[in-house]
Amino acid sequence: MNKQITLAARPVGYPKESDFKLVETPIPTPEDGQVLLKTIYLSVDPYMRGRMNQARSYAANVEFNEVMVGGVVAQVVESKHTDFQAGDIVNAHIGWQEYGISGGDGLRKIDPSIAPISTGIGILGMPGLTAYFGLLEVGQLQDGETVFVSGAAGAVGSVVGQIAKIKGCRVIGAAGSDEKIAYITNELGFDEAFNYKNVNDYPAKLAELCPVGIDVYFDNVGGEITDAVFPNLRLKGRVVICGQISQYNLESLETGPRFLWYMITKRARIEGFLVSDYFDKQTEALAQMAEWLQQGKLKYRETIAEGGIENAPAAFISMLKGGNIGKQLVKISEPS
Amino acid sequence: MNKQITLAARPVGYPKESDFKLVETPIPTPEDGQVLLKTIYLSVDPYMRGRMNQARSYAANVEFNEVMVGGVVAQVVESKHTDFQAGDIVNAHIGWQEYGISGGDGLRKIDPSIAPISTGIGILGMPGLTAYFGLLEVGQLQDGETVFVSGAAGAVGSVVGQIAKIKGCRVIGAAGSDEKIAYITNELGFDEAFNYKNVNDYPAKLAELCPVGIDVYFDNVGGEITDAVFPNLRLKGRVVICGQISQYNLESLETGPRFLWYMITKRARIEGFLVSDYFDKQTEALAQMAEWLQQGKLKYRETIAEGGIENAPAAFISMLKGGNIGKQLVKISEPS
Repeated sequence: MNKQITLAARPVGYPKESDFKLVETPIPTPEDGQVLLKTIYLSVDPYMRGRMNQARSYAANVEFNEVMVGGVVAQVVESKHTDFQAGDIVNAHIGWQEYGISGGDGLRKIDPSIAPISTGIGILGMPGLTAYFGLLEVGQLQDGETVFVSGAAGAVGSVVGQIAKIKGCRVIGAAGSDEKIAYITNELGFDEAFNYKNVNDYPAKLAELCPVGIDVYFDNVGGEITDAVFPNLRLKGRVVICGQISQYNLESLETGPRFLWYMITKRARIEGFLVSDYFDKQTEALAQMAEWLQQGKLKYRETIAEGGIENAPAAFISMLKGGNIGKQLVKISEPS
Repeated sequence: MNKQITLAARPVGYPKESDFKLVETPIPTPEDGQVLLKTIYLSVDPYMRGRMNQARSYAANVEFNEVMVGGVVAQVVESKHTDFQAGDIVNAHIGWQEYGISGGDGLRKIDPSIAPISTGIGILGMPGLTAYFGLLEVGQLQDGETVFVSGAAGAVGSVVGQIAKIKGCRVIGAAGSDEKIAYITNELGFDEAFNYKNVNDYPAKLAELCPVGIDVYFDNVGGEITDAVFPNLRLKGRVVICGQISQYNLESLETGPRFLWYMITKRARIEGFLVSDYFDKQTEALAQMAEWLQQGKLKYRETIAEGGIENAPAAFISMLKGGNIGKQLVKISEPS
């Protein structure tokens, strides 16, 4: 049988395990042009919280009793597709389930000789590409600039800071535990970082750590940390909106200080993006990321939840509360 | 003697006439390389309110007892500069005074054969260029898009809407009186407009008037009208921040709903600018604007305050409260 996690209820505030349901269905059979996939690692990501809402998001939201959306590293069990054969390791978007069918669209082979296959949904997958395109394409990062990253110990933020260091920038990060701060400064080479749970005055902290101002702010969190960036932006500063995780689990909408006046005084830009807007450049980007990884210029950590698909809701909720360092994964099965 | 208006006090909320002081000083004498200018028209503009504050703005603020900053149309009275001769009509930045000295930097000759010389600080001057560059360079307007403009009957907004119409766009405007609404729809060709003082639910109004969403929002006002744009933005929408006049005269900072999440879901961009960032392209832009004006494709109105320099503070305050249609000027003297 195929175990799946479906949406049972739309969360109010933080999701609860009862918002999800474990169901069993028959393992599907591939038709011509399709492959049957067996999930090895499931990715749980902040964006999935938005898909659980009724409110319109950037993509179709998950309906009741539908399988939760998500990327996986999977192995081809049976192939009726000319480009894939049994045993191939691939990145796929079959959602929270043990087995799934793909017609090949968006299926990307993972080369196990480059790095552990789990990186296919991590630093060499969607989160890594999000960091790469967000910083370089949206943020138009220039050598030697000052970069501030929120959510800096997460799957995306930790890569953002490292790419900025590769580009010769000064990098400041915010994260939510002293362990995370130690990780990004000692292991990843961030120049400065602060635990936002131990700081009261974010604008003053940023002014202290970024005395010349911030050229690029890579925003994973929104809320008060982001508010503090605007007065500290440099002329022609760029604010890259990647995520707003502080806002996803609020039961009612927050208000905040109006900041658009700063956009004029700083002649600044705010831009939101989805990594999928840049997928036509992903081959080149992944080759660059793999090179940096093999050169030791990029490091990564993964927080891997064991316990199979049954444990995906708990791992997801833990990630939303900041329980992970680096990429949060769920181990579903062993490759054959 | 030379009458000048200087800053007497930093305003709290809306400026009062007592925040200004009329002083008399000797008429200055030009040195080699300089011209003596006599002001004909003084421009009063929203940005000047920011310059009256102590808080840092995008340019040096006016200090106590300094002449208020501002653009003028002036006539050269005496020239010791090789590029200018007595009698020339020019656009200059000598501030709120009857006479001033210029070394030639930023001095632009106005050709009286093209249009009335008052347009040199209006549709063929800073406000016209602000509309032109804001919409076409910052907003990257494409033919056939939907454009929403706030402050739509003002010196900048009225030109924004007309350029968008020239570019084949659907144009919606917001302004603060029924007379303004009649002007922009009947005379300027806006497709739709609403008096924001008579509408309660801005998001619903915009949804009604822009059923496919807004591609470019040209923001002169900020506040609740701007808040209403984000849920109505179209995918890849652009928000051009030109002014925030609703916020300039508040005694304490407003808060508003957080909207950065929409930047991701719409993959949208917000960008602030100053017209001076584009001055290297002004010759070409002014030629295009003059051509449209002579073809009857661009129209304009001016609200001209009489009474000389003494009346500049009252005209400025009236403009901040929306008393003008089109460009607010103060008539200072007759050309010779």
